[in-house]
Amino acid sequence: MENILWQHILHVRKTSPLVHNITNYVVMNTTANALLAIGASPIMAHAKSEVLEMVTISHAVVINIGTVDEYWEASMLTAAKKANELQKPWILDSVGAGATPYRDLVLDKLLALNPTVIRGNASEIISLAKVNKENTKGVDSTAKSDEAIEAALFLANTCKSVVCISGETDIVVSHDQFIYLKNGHPMMTKVTGLGCTASALIGAFIAVVENKTEAVTAAMAVIGIAGELAAKASPGPGSLQLNITDKLYNITEQEFQHHLKIEK
Amino acid sequence: MENILWQHILHVRKTSPLVHNITNYVVMNTTANALLAIGASPIMAHAKSEVLEMVTISHAVVINIGTVDEYWEASMLTAAKKANELQKPWILDSVGAGATPYRDLVLDKLLALNPTVIRGNASEIISLAKVNKENTKGVDSTAKSDEAIEAALFLANTCKSVVCISGETDIVVSHDQFIYLKNGHPMMTKVTGLGCTASALIGAFIAVVENKTEAVTAAMAVIGIAGELAAKASPGPGSLQLNITDKLYNITEQEFQHHLKIEK
Amino acid sequence: MENILWQHILHVRKTSPLVHNITNYVVMNTTANALLAIGASPIMAHAKSEVLEMVTISHAVVINIGTVDEYWEASMLTAAKKANELQKPWILDSVGAGATPYRDLVLDKLLALNPTVIRGNASEIISLAKVNKENTKGVDSTAKSDEAIEAALFLANTCKSVVCISGETDIVVSHDQFIYLKNGHPMMTKVTGLGCTASALIGAFIAVVENKTEAVTAAMAVIGIAGELAAKASPGPGSLQLNITDKLYNITEQEFQHHLKIEK
Repeated sequence: MENILWQHILHVRKTSPLVHNITNYVVMNTTANALLAIGASPIMAHAKSEVLEMVTISHAVVINIGTVDEYWEASMLTAAKKANELQKPWILDSVGAGATPYRDLVLDKLLALNPTVIRGNASEIISLAKVNKENTKGVDSTAKSDEAIEAALFLANTCKSVVCISGETDIVVSHDQFIYLKNGHPMMTKVTGLGCTASALIGAFIAVVENKTEAVTAAMAVIGIAGELAAKASPGPGSLQLNITDKLYNITEQEFQHHLKIEK
Repeated sequence: MENILWQHILHVRKTSPLVHNITNYVVMNTTANALLAIGASPIMAHAKSEVLEMVTISHAVVINIGTVDEYWEASMLTAAKKANELQKPWILDSVGAGATPYRDLVLDKLLALNPTVIRGNASEIISLAKVNKENTKGVDSTAKSDEAIEAALFLANTCKSVVCISGETDIVVSHDQFIYLKNGHPMMTKVTGLGCTASALIGAFIAVVENKTEAVTAAMAVIGIAGELAAKASPGPGSLQLNITDKLYNITEQEFQHHLKIEK
Repeated sequence: MENILWQHILHVRKTSPLVHNITNYVVMNTTANALLAIGASPIMAHAKSEVLEMVTISHAVVINIGTVDEYWEASMLTAAKKANELQKPWILDSVGAGATPYRDLVLDKLLALNPTVIRGNASEIISLAKVNKENTKGVDSTAKSDEAIEAALFLANTCKSVVCISGETDIVVSHDQFIYLKNGHPMMTKVTGLGCTASALIGAFIAVVENKTEAVTAAMAVIGIAGELAAKASPGPGSLQLNITDKLYNITEQEFQHHLKIEK
């Protein structure tokens, strides 16, 4: 798979897919910039009066519930339904799953709309699987990482989604395989919304890459490697945020292949 | 005109006009920072309960439909009407014109409220002219840049506005003249919302400069030159965004005059 | 107090309090990043459907009216009431106090809900005291800084709050003492939302420091010193914003103690 990932990056750069984001206020600027840096074209729009048309003209949809409220919830549901109707890929970023009953209610509705990809950290993926009622007793591992993998596998099977658990090791789970990515840097946890950025990038890759497992893997690999390289030049998380954007833009094949740490 | 432009920059720095922005979520931070860097005072506020008073205390209004929805639309219309009533200058940034019928509906209403300035890229300006129904058959050029100029001229005449087409060459169109600005750098297209930043800066200049054509030209010149100079020190669009803010703040007369590329 | 302030910074880093922000669109990204940099865990959420639960799981609440509207106002009031009910500390950032009648109406309602801390610049603190009707004749000093101190003292007594006036000198006012902090740099006024960042940081400190006057002082000291040190490496406000985030993350005890300028 190593060689194909770089091809997918080139493919995004070349085709510049239109990625429609219904995302949170905190990351709108940084995720739009990340999408531009990787070569995609971001749209940020949420109005009920235009969400159907925005999905129609886009190549993929990113739905991120970070600052969801009742209005945005309705737009997200409309967009996800339309994406399904038009067979366009969409990704669900489950920010804060488990934090409040409302958040879980929204996620429950979104999960029912067949996300192409689901991304979250270990706690979020575990919460998501619990939201999916039938599974309540399935998630009972004691080790958190095992519990997250079990939850991801459950979601991958019930939702027919590729599931990405992000963390120190990113794990891409689809019904028939596990892929482990060990790139990244601890300081990345001190930059707000890098998970959201990962989801936005996944949006760009699923827009144009047929194999969705490879698409997710390519996106997670490039953000992980960009973060790892950027951290070397960053005295703190302020400069890290910016240096990651720069690196998404100017990463070379050599840098990518040399640093990629992938295991199956 | 070359010499007067720098005077206008000094005038903005000296008078620090209050610029009221009803703008999109993506660029609120970066445009507020750009306004501060050029010496103006930004207000970002959209509540229906205070929009009239905010327009009243401001020196100019910036209306940008990037993430418009039904609530914000109402605030924008109220603000534009109040600006007219008080004879305060306002600029319309037509982000995404033509992308959805809703967006064009909002733009149609805003165009009817006599924007002092209209700014967009070539496609947006062409879409805007089409929105203005009477013009449908007027826009039929085959070359896109010619089509945009024709559209801009139409808008300049029907709306009594100064129209700015931004792109590789920025074109400022008023009823009696065309001004061409050839500053900027290709990497600027990889930073989200630099067009929005240009519009915000135009807001600062029209607030205090009597001749609106000169005001728009000064704003577009300073962002173009700042971008050009900043790009030299920027390995990617993350650092470019930040370096442009810095350069808007510390640009010198010599830098401005030396790099200005203007043609009539 | 000098020695205890650094202990409070270490305490925030160690305990990583959950800080719930109902804040303005302009600063969501930068304040979330500042909270992460200082070692806290930010939540940005405003939905009526979950605001009660978010307050419940948080250690402190930050309410900032910068881009308030009717929906957000309701969420802020609900959050502040819940914070009181649960005896959780909360801070009010009075952005734009006095600018419009609506803003003052919102502030009047929030002031009635016993903010643990109130922060604003001199004009805002003066306006806030005027909002508090009974005080109208109490604020009649001629010198603005004196007027602000008098207003702060009034608010400290009537609201039982610690009041922070930020400016060239930051003044922390509680019912029995005044603390003056003389750190910072003039270029900080050219970065949007650094006052909002100060309020967010105060949220982190009041979450875990028992003595609220010390908590506010520690927060204002660290942002002031970080700004002062960051300014030395910043050619403009774009890089200053980022360098402050970096410095909040990597400031050392020696840097802090060496630069702290505090007077009682």
